[in-house]
Amino acid sequence: MKNILGREIPEYIEGYGTVKAFKGAFASLREVERKAVKLQSAEPTEKKVLSSIKDAIEKCTIKDGMTVSFHHHLRNGDYVLNMVLEELSKTGIKDIRVAASSIFPVHAPLVEHMKSGMVTGICANYMSGPVAEAISRGELKYPAIMHTHGGRARAIESGDISIDIAFIAAPTCDTYGNINGVEGKSACGTLGYAVPDAMYAEKVVAITDNLIPYPACPIEITQEYIDFVVEVESIGDPNGIVSGTTQITKDPVGLKIAKMTSEVIEASGLLKKGFSFQTGAGGTSLAVADYVKKLMQQKDIKGSFAAGGITGYMVEMFEEGLFESLFDVQCFDLKAVESYRENKRHQNMSASMYGNPHNKGAVVNNLDVMILGATEIDTAFNANVTTGSNGMIMGGSGGHSDTAAGAKLAIVVTQLVKGRLPIVVDDVTTVTTPGETIDVLVTERGIAVNPKRQDLIEKLEKTKLPIMSIEELKQIAEKMTGTPEKIEAEDQLVAVIEYRDGTVIDTVKKI
Amino acid sequence: MKNILGREIPEYIEGYGTVKAFKGAFASLREVERKAVKLQSAEPTEKKVLSSIKDAIEKCTIKDGMTVSFHHHLRNGDYVLNMVLEELSKTGIKDIRVAASSIFPVHAPLVEHMKSGMVTGICANYMSGPVAEAISRGELKYPAIMHTHGGRARAIESGDISIDIAFIAAPTCDTYGNINGVEGKSACGTLGYAVPDAMYAEKVVAITDNLIPYPACPIEITQEYIDFVVEVESIGDPNGIVSGTTQITKDPVGLKIAKMTSEVIEASGLLKKGFSFQTGAGGTSLAVADYVKKLMQQKDIKGSFAAGGITGYMVEMFEEGLFESLFDVQCFDLKAVESYRENKRHQNMSASMYGNPHNKGAVVNNLDVMILGATEIDTAFNANVTTGSNGMIMGGSGGHSDTAAGAKLAIVVTQLVKGRLPIVVDDVTTVTTPGETIDVLVTERGIAVNPKRQDLIEKLEKTKLPIMSIEELKQIAEKMTGTPEKIEAEDQLVAVIEYRDGTVIDTVKKI
Repeated sequence: MKNILGREIPEYIEGYGTVKAFKGAFASLREVERKAVKLQSAEPTEKKVLSSIKDAIEKCTIKDGMTVSFHHHLRNGDYVLNMVLEELSKTGIKDIRVAASSIFPVHAPLVEHMKSGMVTGICANYMSGPVAEAISRGELKYPAIMHTHGGRARAIESGDISIDIAFIAAPTCDTYGNINGVEGKSACGTLGYAVPDAMYAEKVVAITDNLIPYPACPIEITQEYIDFVVEVESIGDPNGIVSGTTQITKDPVGLKIAKMTSEVIEASGLLKKGFSFQTGAGGTSLAVADYVKKLMQQKDIKGSFAAGGITGYMVEMFEEGLFESLFDVQCFDLKAVESYRENKRHQNMSASMYGNPHNKGAVVNNLDVMILGATEIDTAFNANVTTGSNGMIMGGSGGHSDTAAGAKLAIVVTQLVKGRLPIVVDDVTTVTTPGETIDVLVTERGIAVNPKRQDLIEKLEKTKLPIMSIEELKQIAEKMTGTPEKIEAEDQLVAVIEYRDGTVIDTVKKI
Repeated sequence: MKNILGREIPEYIEGYGTVKAFKGAFASLREVERKAVKLQSAEPTEKKVLSSIKDAIEKCTIKDGMTVSFHHHLRNGDYVLNMVLEELSKTGIKDIRVAASSIFPVHAPLVEHMKSGMVTGICANYMSGPVAEAISRGELKYPAIMHTHGGRARAIESGDISIDIAFIAAPTCDTYGNINGVEGKSACGTLGYAVPDAMYAEKVVAITDNLIPYPACPIEITQEYIDFVVEVESIGDPNGIVSGTTQITKDPVGLKIAKMTSEVIEASGLLKKGFSFQTGAGGTSLAVADYVKKLMQQKDIKGSFAAGGITGYMVEMFEEGLFESLFDVQCFDLKAVESYRENKRHQNMSASMYGNPHNKGAVVNNLDVMILGATEIDTAFNANVTTGSNGMIMGGSGGHSDTAAGAKLAIVVTQLVKGRLPIVVDDVTTVTTPGETIDVLVTERGIAVNPKRQDLIEKLEKTKLPIMSIEELKQIAEKMTGTPEKIEAEDQLVAVIEYRDGTVIDTVKKI
């Protein structure tokens, strides 16, 4: 069958189930249900600390076919996913589904577990490196499921993903399972992506390299959700967990795009008292923040909040009083960790509070402006951040689709041509985020506004900004590169791309 | 039928259902389930602020037979329960169950709603004043259900109480439903008792007298649980919400009991590094804290935490470094509110985290010493804090049963005789807390240790403390007062006393 975007999708997928076709970004908002959760209540005198991951696996009575989950707050420094799967591989268990909020190059050993048949399913919101490549080559038994950050929370809360055992990497944990991310040698800041796992998994194991006496205040994930605690030598490599600082681009093309973007924001009328803003940690995105900052200073604008994964750059704007608060699902650098530890208005948020479309209102719904990237964008404004133009998985939505759907003004910023390939195309290789939720594309050669935003087109046409149609941008790009050849994908489906509401927006084929 | 304590209880109660008999304090710990929750997911552009309580009631489509809930953080200053019921009474609705975490004298207008038939059921963890008296006189259609603080959280999470609409008094709330209790003219501190209501009710309405721009950081109850926000002139009377400061008793008998109690604690061996402690806000309880404080100072002991409803007195001990942290479900005075606002190690806890026996481990499980009161205690150490010896409801468990079950050493402190009535009796009028969870009774005339605590008896017999059997204490009391007459209760059952696990430990009859 075809979904509303015209993407061909199966009605049923082995290892996934019946497919619900994507019907539009806001078609599924209605009465929903957070699932019931089975748990074993604690005896008052019971201890939670176990001597090893092996012990925890035994106590949780793992079985073939179960789903185990992990969070990605330790990013490319994470040791926990590999340690747990290594231990699992010794048990002879098979047919395990790994529900990781994201997968990084450090998780390369997972490829061997795919090949051995221990791991036959993977869900993630983002994946890069050897695991993503192996999945693209068809080495996972069942198609991977790619969620958005908010969609993963939704899937866990609704029971679409039923987690049997959540393994939570805990930078600091006390003997009764209270966890915080702000202390310890592996401090990573907020733990927003781990919250749904803790609340909805049947068994929850905290794995820490900083086991401290009760209680681990300030507590972020609380004891009543944790079954067991295991101390290990190290949960991660500090160099991979947080970067030192995040940097604004020095590339003149990036700076040009950023400046134009700030002018779009200014012209939109949203840049006023109470302004709210989110951007990623990339160099061009930070450059946008820098231009926005200068505008806010010039005009003496006090914003309400900045949100998302938080960088030191956002912390600076917050500390200068340009924003009242920060909403932080994940700290990107040490400065953000420090600020979150010290400042009560640097507020943590769970993945559900951040972006789940099926709760009573996520933070993304209050965003004025969101700055997004894209590897491709098509003439219907559909954006791809999941695959390269060669079809290889090298990313995923993360919060892309969530923030695009929530923000009043969602802007994709990108160079028009990258690596001799045009970024604007007739059809993106993979749809990650539907065009109806993207308002503007800013490139160094021109700016295209989604035709559904006539109000914005009128405002921007009054400026000197180079406004043109997205088809014109595509033609400019193709003049530079030639028309790109269509890639030939095989029939085998290797990943299912779920929109945040659990419908299927696209699939990825074997390359 | 009779339960394990020999209390006669029906097998079925109209308006309550099938009775599960109490089988012992730790008999029900096993696999349990947190219930599924239906909700209406928000449209991204939807607003939550409504113009009145009347509007909120209409939007929530209230029906006959529904359960509406309230928290008691505003105590005897609360306006919200009365305002909502007043509005409900204009709709002609009937057969409503009011699930309030506690009911105070200020809630007297509820009596009229009982008489009119609008309110036919009430659940509460504690009740005093006209509503308690009217229930005792048989003026509520169905028996009231009395929970413990942890038991109410359990009942809400399990679905034993299914809340249709929770009305949450919010000292500060933003336009998207984020709530905190530390700012605004009605600031009351932590909001621990309201957390289960917010998480498990189908509809949740925040009622605030301090509606502020988004976001209300530091947020305690988050937006994803809130459907609607209503601003009113005032949610409560500041004089009734928090007392100025709490005071140590000056009564010499109270001081004597407190000193002996501190000596019992010392002799128990629990007073060492990592010590944890909870006491109520009464004058004798605070005097115990004062003696414990001096012992901790003398011996240079650093405790881990103090818990419960937090008083300024506990804040002082915390600020002097005698405790690493405070676990706060409810701030008792302004000093506690201030400390909670300013100090990240003054940690809030939900009612479930505090005392729910059916989660993965509540804070009470980590308590070393708990200081409790009692209106009566029998020779099996069963304690009554629910009814007076005349059978009139004038209290309830609150956290009494929860902390007694969790603490390593649960001590009841009381004068041996009050108002010419002996406190130690053959059978308490109403069992609130089972004797198996109470370790010691300290009175001015002597100390009785529960025979099941032979270890403690051995330790205390090495001291000069006046250790005797509880029967001896009873005899001393009866020599002073004469044997009390048995009260004659009528057959009509007016309240069901649920133990924290949802079994029925006793009932209260009409007087």
